Formats: sequence, structure tokens, C-alpha cells
Amino acid sequence: MTAAGAKPRRDRLSEATILRLSLLLRCLRVLVDERLDTVSSLALAQRFGMNAAQIRKDLAHLGEFGVRGVGYRVADLRARLSSILGLDRVRVVVIVGAGNLGQALADSKNFNGESFRVGALFDVDGRKVGGRSRTGIPIRHAGTLPESVAELGAEIGVLAVPAEGAEEAARALAGAGIRGILNFAPANLGPVPGATVRNVDLTLSLETLAIHLGAGG
Amino acid sequence: MTAAGAKPRRDRLSEATILRLSLLLRCLRVLVDERLDTVSSLALAQRFGMNAAQIRKDLAHLGEFGVRGVGYRVADLRARLSSILGLDRVRVVVIVGAGNLGQALADSKNFNGESFRVGALFDVDGRKVGGRSRTGIPIRHAGTLPESVAELGAEIGVLAVPAEGAEEAARALAGAGIRGILNFAPANLGPVPGATVRNVDLTLSLETLAIHLGAGG
Repeated sequence: MTAAGAKPRRDRLSEATILRLSLLLRCLRVLVDERLDTVSSLALAQRFGMNAAQIRKDLAHLGEFGVRGVGYRVADLRARLSSILGLDRVRVVVIVGAGNLGQALADSKNFNGESFRVGALFDVDGRKVGGRSRTGIPIRHAGTLPESVAELGAEIGVLAVPAEGAEEAARALAGAGIRGILNFAPANLGPVPGATVRNVDLTLSLETLAIHLGAGG
Repeated sequence: MTAAGAKPRRDRLSEATILRLSLLLRCLRVLVDERLDTVSSLALAQRFGMNAAQIRKDLAHLGEFGVRGVGYRVADLRARLSSILGLDRVRVVVIVGAGNLGQALADSKNFNGESFRVGALFDVDGRKVGGRSRTGIPIRHAGTLPESVAELGAEIGVLAVPAEGAEEAARALAGAGIRGILNFAPANLGPVPGATVRNVDLTLSLETLAIHLGAGG
């Protein structure tokens, strides 16, 4: 879709850099909404509590963006960052598990925005299959994953199943051609052949918060 | 509860250190389950993909744990780390919003373990109030937050409400005496007087995954 030469070697960026660029992109979206034309790395840093030198360094990896004395053109930087990060088109997400969590994710703004759209939920419970989530996402039988993934052009799979069903569901997703899996099941998923797995650990944020509160009691 | 002298200055630890110690604690829990007696920083690092020098440095902040030539005593280190991080007792969590997400969190293993227990869900929807989640967590009226928080001894509040209700709910929690708030609403919550707020950004993990998959298409 895009000339290869226009993209830097994203695959060589470190995990940490990718996370920072992703955060930077969200900040730029805010500034675009505020109709700001240009922004300096210092202003970006102050506004969003980041490190100005780090911002300059991260963006320098990606080619020439800044204009000396002016800063960055907000809309332009946002568009280029979005393209470099591969977030400039909508990816279809499928969610395995149509319980409370799966349906919450299917209906959330987080999963239905400028880069993502939930195509379907999957479950094996006959009382759910054939129904829809509150916002209308169809619930299909998990046995139809291969056809559904192909039909929807889905690229990302989300696991919202109990811990004991996580590994099987992950393999089913990978078998259906899904290359990226986001795991919300409270299970330590090992490597899944053919797919990149990210475990979302909800306990960790709770623990970090508790630690900040101090031992108290 | 604990002699002040037994605890290092946790409040002076950086955010990054706390996150690493919290991750380390989870690794130690795995090793305790495996009935391992001692572990070296190197073995810990290799097993869990961490940095051995960083582990030694982080633990050195906290006092003398290691035994030269032997490594760390797993059970002892785990107990002390848990105590230092203030995770050695159960804290009661209340969840505002008894929709799919709130109920999913209330029933999840993540929120009901050795350090946390969900005391109640809160909502304003008369069809939900008086009911219970699948695992039996009661759903109370949001208007009863102050009495409920006091009665339950709740310390942490979780926001599982739509974006537009997040700020009001956060203030209600703080007003009821909650000092730590975990926000799952897709809204940028500003500071809430009297409480520490952590925003859980579910889009970010989806974006990082998408970035790893490459622009493709």
C-alpha cells in the first residue's frame, strides 16, 4: 500500500520506543483536536509530562520531522507517526468469549475507533450464539472461527475466556490465521505458534496502585 | 501493624522500581508454587527474561536479602517483598458501574486474590441494584457509597462507568474516603482531590500489538 522507502525500519524499534511513540501519537491526537498547528518537543513534554530530549531522540529514529525553531507540524507529525506505526487503517478484531468481559470489550470505545473495529464475538454457549452485544456486535459459534476470520479480514484476536480455556482459544485463533493475540484471561499464555501474544495483566495495575497507597492498615 | 523500622522507605521508590518489584513478586510467587528454596539473581533473570544486575540493584534498595554464593531464599524474599510493597493483607475494592465491564472485573480472579477482594458493585440502575454478580458480589445503589465504603473498609475504587460519568464517579469515591482509584472508563481523568488515580488504557495494548504486526495490508 505504501512505498517501502517511505517507512523506517519499524521492526527494529525497541518495545520501549514503540510504547513511547504510541503514547506520543495519543498526545498528538489531542493537539489535533485542539487545532494546534505546531508544537515544540519542549511544549509536548511539558503538556503531557514527558521528557523533551527523549521525544527528540525517538522521533529522530524515524526520519526528519522537526523544523528548527518552529517545532513539529502537529497534523503532519500525527499522520506520519500513525502511518509509521501502522495505525493509519482500521484493523478488524475478533473476540473469543462473549461473557461480561468479552461483551464489554466488544462495545467499548477503546476497541472501536480509528484503528480498530470489532467484527464479531465468539462463544460456544448456545444461548449466546446468534445473539448480539449491546452495540450490535454479532456473537458467532467458536467453531466458525476459520471462516469468520477470513470473511471479516480479521487480524487481531482478543481472548476473554476463563483461564482454563485460554490456550485452546489462542491456538484456534492462530489456526484461523490471526497473527496478534491480546490475552485478557488470567492465565500465563506461553508462545503460540504463528502468533504474537500480549498478556494484559489487570492485577498489576491494581497492585501498583495499592503499593502507592502504602501499607497503611 | 508492622514496626516502622522494618520497612524501607517505600514512598521514596520510583514508579519504575515499584513496577519492577511488583513484577519480581509475581515471579517469586511462581517459584514458591514450584517449591524452589533458593534462587540467584541470574537464574531469576534468565527464567523470567529480566536483567540480573537490575534485580540486584532493586533489591539492594530494600535492605539485605541475598546470601552470597547461595542467592535469595525464595519464600523469605517473597514474604518480605510482599510486606514491603504492602501487599501482605487483603484490601477491599469497590467497583462503580455494574455493566458488563464492572461485573467482569468483580468476578475476575485478578480482583479476588491474596491481596484484593471485591466488596460491592455500585450502580444507579434500579434493575441492577439489589442484585448480585455471577459470583455473588452485591450490587448496591451508588448513593450508598459513603456508608458502604465505611462499612466494607474499602480502600480502592474501580471506575467501570461510561466516559461521561467517570469524573463524577471519581469524586464520589474520593468523597467517600477512597484514596486509590483505578479508572477503566475511556476518559482522561484529571487529578481527583484526595485520591491517586491510575488510568488503565486498554487501547494502548491493542495499539502496541498492532504496531508489532506491522503495517501490512
